[in-house]
Amino acid sequence: MQQIKIALLGIGRIGKIHFRNINQYFSNTSIVAVADPQYDHDSFKKEFGNVFFTKNPEEAIAHADVNAVLVCTPTSSHATLVEAAARTGKHIFCEKPLDLSLERTAAIAKFVKDANVKLMLGFNRRFDPDFMQARKAVKEGRIGNVQIVKITSRDPGLPPIEYIKNSGGLFMDMAIHDFDMARYIMDKKVIEVYSRGLVLVNDEVASAGDVDTALTTLIFEDGTYAVIDNSRKAAYGYDQRLEIFGDDGMIQVNNNHHNTNVISDENGIHHALPLDFFMDRYAKSYLKEMELFIDALVNDKEMPVSGEDGLQATLIAVAAKKSMKEGRPVKVSEPWNAQP
Amino acid sequence: MQQIKIALLGIGRIGKIHFRNINQYFSNTSIVAVADPQYDHDSFKKEFGNVFFTKNPEEAIAHADVNAVLVCTPTSSHATLVEAAARTGKHIFCEKPLDLSLERTAAIAKFVKDANVKLMLGFNRRFDPDFMQARKAVKEGRIGNVQIVKITSRDPGLPPIEYIKNSGGLFMDMAIHDFDMARYIMDKKVIEVYSRGLVLVNDEVASAGDVDTALTTLIFEDGTYAVIDNSRKAAYGYDQRLEIFGDDGMIQVNNNHHNTNVISDENGIHHALPLDFFMDRYAKSYLKEMELFIDALVNDKEMPVSGEDGLQATLIAVAAKKSMKEGRPVKVSEPWNAQP
Amino acid sequence: MQQIKIALLGIGRIGKIHFRNINQYFSNTSIVAVADPQYDHDSFKKEFGNVFFTKNPEEAIAHADVNAVLVCTPTSSHATLVEAAARTGKHIFCEKPLDLSLERTAAIAKFVKDANVKLMLGFNRRFDPDFMQARKAVKEGRIGNVQIVKITSRDPGLPPIEYIKNSGGLFMDMAIHDFDMARYIMDKKVIEVYSRGLVLVNDEVASAGDVDTALTTLIFEDGTYAVIDNSRKAAYGYDQRLEIFGDDGMIQVNNNHHNTNVISDENGIHHALPLDFFMDRYAKSYLKEMELFIDALVNDKEMPVSGEDGLQATLIAVAAKKSMKEGRPVKVSEPWNAQP
Amino acid sequence: MQQIKIALLGIGRIGKIHFRNINQYFSNTSIVAVADPQYDHDSFKKEFGNVFFTKNPEEAIAHADVNAVLVCTPTSSHATLVEAAARTGKHIFCEKPLDLSLERTAAIAKFVKDANVKLMLGFNRRFDPDFMQARKAVKEGRIGNVQIVKITSRDPGLPPIEYIKNSGGLFMDMAIHDFDMARYIMDKKVIEVYSRGLVLVNDEVASAGDVDTALTTLIFEDGTYAVIDNSRKAAYGYDQRLEIFGDDGMIQVNNNHHNTNVISDENGIHHALPLDFFMDRYAKSYLKEMELFIDALVNDKEMPVSGEDGLQATLIAVAAKKSMKEGRPVKVSEPWNAQP
Repeated sequence: MQQIKIALLGIGRIGKIHFRNINQYFSNTSIVAVADPQYDHDSFKKEFGNVFFTKNPEEAIAHADVNAVLVCTPTSSHATLVEAAARTGKHIFCEKPLDLSLERTAAIAKFVKDANVKLMLGFNRRFDPDFMQARKAVKEGRIGNVQIVKITSRDPGLPPIEYIKNSGGLFMDMAIHDFDMARYIMDKKVIEVYSRGLVLVNDEVASAGDVDTALTTLIFEDGTYAVIDNSRKAAYGYDQRLEIFGDDGMIQVNNNHHNTNVISDENGIHHALPLDFFMDRYAKSYLKEMELFIDALVNDKEMPVSGEDGLQATLIAVAAKKSMKEGRPVKVSEPWNAQP
Repeated sequence: MQQIKIALLGIGRIGKIHFRNINQYFSNTSIVAVADPQYDHDSFKKEFGNVFFTKNPEEAIAHADVNAVLVCTPTSSHATLVEAAARTGKHIFCEKPLDLSLERTAAIAKFVKDANVKLMLGFNRRFDPDFMQARKAVKEGRIGNVQIVKITSRDPGLPPIEYIKNSGGLFMDMAIHDFDMARYIMDKKVIEVYSRGLVLVNDEVASAGDVDTALTTLIFEDGTYAVIDNSRKAAYGYDQRLEIFGDDGMIQVNNNHHNTNVISDENGIHHALPLDFFMDRYAKSYLKEMELFIDALVNDKEMPVSGEDGLQATLIAVAAKKSMKEGRPVKVSEPWNAQP
Repeated sequence: MQQIKIALLGIGRIGKIHFRNINQYFSNTSIVAVADPQYDHDSFKKEFGNVFFTKNPEEAIAHADVNAVLVCTPTSSHATLVEAAARTGKHIFCEKPLDLSLERTAAIAKFVKDANVKLMLGFNRRFDPDFMQARKAVKEGRIGNVQIVKITSRDPGLPPIEYIKNSGGLFMDMAIHDFDMARYIMDKKVIEVYSRGLVLVNDEVASAGDVDTALTTLIFEDGTYAVIDNSRKAAYGYDQRLEIFGDDGMIQVNNNHHNTNVISDENGIHHALPLDFFMDRYAKSYLKEMELFIDALVNDKEMPVSGEDGLQATLIAVAAKKSMKEGRPVKVSEPWNAQP
Repeated sequence: MQQIKIALLGIGRIGKIHFRNINQYFSNTSIVAVADPQYDHDSFKKEFGNVFFTKNPEEAIAHADVNAVLVCTPTSSHATLVEAAARTGKHIFCEKPLDLSLERTAAIAKFVKDANVKLMLGFNRRFDPDFMQARKAVKEGRIGNVQIVKITSRDPGLPPIEYIKNSGGLFMDMAIHDFDMARYIMDKKVIEVYSRGLVLVNDEVASAGDVDTALTTLIFEDGTYAVIDNSRKAAYGYDQRLEIFGDDGMIQVNNNHHNTNVISDENGIHHALPLDFFMDRYAKSYLKEMELFIDALVNDKEMPVSGEDGLQATLIAVAAKKSMKEGRPVKVSEPWNAQP
């Protein structure tokens, strides 16, 4: 496949990022069709110019030129659209997660595999240059065998309560990134999960049936572990750090800051805060994941994040929720088996 | 009590530190008697000069001038000597732990209380200036309500296997400092413990029935938590860090390094390693704890670390061991109740 | 002026940056004509697509639609092309310097002024977000009255000797950025210069009549000073730092690094090197300067870097060269007066 | 010489430091006599205990047991007392400077040499562990040939104006440390000096005939240079940094801070200020210099700071003052020759 012609489904916040990145950076790739029920033809044309537009995603997928589909719609439609794209033999990039239900996630992953199309899941943090560099150093044996991964993942502020009600909750919409990161760094299977959760940021979160603060221990197949500390609100901004400890040393990945200025005055020595908006913090990762998606299509390579990766992260999220509720460590094999 | 006259029991590595600190820094305090079976009169005199010396600790405690006793002997004799000192009405500073057995620890704590003498336990890290500063900032509300404390505590190398066999193991001889630190920072009761442990440094540790790597979650009475990551061996030296996260911000306590030099060359930007010997790293904390012990005696104040603090840390260590063995969270109230 | 239609003169390394930035980021601006003798029509079209192309810059300037000109050609043609653009009433963005000769620089600055067109000089470092932030903090009085500015400006490697022979030398092609930075931060007139220079990197530099290492003191009209340390080659990469010291504190601007990873091993604690290519290091400043150029045209504002700024920086560079040669401080008013 | 028996002349702020350090750390060294006109016998005995005391320094020098003399009196008496000690064949440690006058400094240095006694001058900063480490790295070739040394040396506050009137001024009492540091790091002869000075902290300094802010360039015999930036008052405390740049890299020596805590809140990321009292900042250097003085006596080694070092630093200070006054670079050979 030399020229990638894309149907973009959903042109919200994240869809726009991919739209711009593709237009600016990839001469072998173009967006030939866009579907989004939030726009009408005129408003779309005014904002995005002359691209085939429809409110109906199926129509965009079916567009004659299209050979790859980007699913950037709300989570609830991911599964259906991935299936539709796979059915017509189009390759797929889908924002995470495939689905909130485990069964559906597993079914879709299988369906796509059987349809023999490529699927990449948008765990964009894997493609952040700092985290990629850390993983590379681990793979090169820079710190020997890894013993523990510690992830700090704190958001700059609570999302709308309405979002929380539909997102699957903290483990499913937020910590799932960190579960995937732990798997990405360690490259080992997670077999057990122990989670604690609290409501410390806002009582409405409790009413919505969720927590806003959590601590999760993941146990890998060889007994080594990861620990993940989540909060919906860090007063100082978006806190995204990693610490990897191995036989021969330690790798720490620090935050990206607003600037490199340091001000010393009679009260102290002051540095700038971390970037606080995820689209700024991860701007490069969105570009890099698209580059790798296109590269895998053009050069017929394996996708860097598979449906199976999505399934594993979801399995961990489900186990984490169960562990928190039941106050005990839960095997990742448990929740899946337990569901009829 | 205006003049503190001390019987020092045990003049090994740690006893020497206290001996020198008292001689150099406290004009109202003097060591009037020393007991240590490892020395004879001549060798003691040669090394330490003209102080009353005996091989028999009871004799040193009984010395007419003595009004306070420093117990710096091996752990196995702590309980007996603390009891002996309490029985004769002498105030006591005792290196941690009081005893490896929970019952004995509780009994001693009670005995001392009933004897109406003061007892300070040598959890020296509480008196490290960096950690004191962090606790002070927490108490002043600098970061609002504390949500989580994360402790990194990694030794620069494995102690002798013989030591491990008699120390009570990683949770009892090493992590116990961190359990106390978590309590010190949070000032709340720990009610539940979940621990994982591994042998990753040296297989002989397994033969000795211990682990050399551990991860522990502590749950406080209000549901907030601490997470502690221990290793017997960090390739880059002694790693003693703290991260405290609260509603309004975060406090991080970093390592103390060999020097402030930064070298930039074609391979990178290089900083000096952390101080790797505990006596260098915590030199100031040994001095500060003695200052506070003496101050509490002179000004009849409460001791900054009580027998109860020792008991609580030991309870947590016992629970941690149990949790690791049984693969489940263990209530701190459990192990104690469980033992007939 | 609502729509900016640009003639781009010279599409080498720096011309390409502006070409891409304008195409990607400014919907109210378009490049309507490009002139470059290095391309023929076919090769240009292949690489850059359908834009009016000519080998002759005058022809591009004269293009009917053009209302602004970007001069990105070699230094020797800057003056002529700026003059040509001004003569036809087109606004101008010109890469620094206007000219290597002081008289010509002054004459051009005056010509442009008299022609009543706007001229912005490409001192791009002023628009680096870190430096802008430092200047903003100074302006807001964050550190009180500024007493001294210290600039570290070291290149990652020697440019080709051929370049050095024609560039006007270290003070004119490299330190001139720092002279402008000192003026930008302090917003005061430089009246005296004292420079030392050495050949420490490569003896060929001496044969070319230049130095590769220099130290310059600038004296401002009120007696306060700046000190600038230049080297053509820092083993650890591109070193671009600033320290501003005032009555109430200090602002330091540090380097931008390849990544935020920190690796600790038995040899030390290792950070990533600074970005070593000027186009990476200053990528944002090229975009920002174009944004401000366009903004000044659209909203009829004063240009953020004027011809006078170019003249002042050149005057300082000439004085610096003279000071180095004569081993004495040189007044900035001196060289100009001294030339018949 | 196996046992060092010291006459301490002057037991003010700095004399006390040496008194305590010698008593605590050097078993082969004792202070056998103290002279200080500020004390009478009773007050001395009360504060310092049973040591031979006199108001008359000559009497302390003459004390039968004494084989070494520590001169810690005000600067104006240094020369006389060093001479007196040398005349009686006692080795000497003298706080800097030997004298404010160049001729007297040179004469004393010669006198001591001819008397064949050892003399160490108290340039204590050479013995700060961080600076020693930097010099060691330079000597080991860690950054290749050194091209430039940059010293930042800012005091936390203005000394009393009365002190400034008698101290010889900023270059003689403050920058002289930095001149010595530049020589220590580079191990090369300084041949030329260019200084600028300003009164920015307090106008009374001008009335006292001094400056409170200065910038000095030192030129070494091979053309390489040092640049030193001095202020009597940094709002953020005592700023003592070093940057050494060489062919193969850079060494930076940073400040020592109050603690390692880092607090992140909604306003920024805050670190502790540098230690602000010179006795805290340089506590280790006072101890180390005494250790090396004693070591040179016991093992008959050369002193690590000689009278010649004192003379060279004074020559630079005199040249710096002259340069500032005359607004031109001054040869170090000049001031000396110039004085009849």
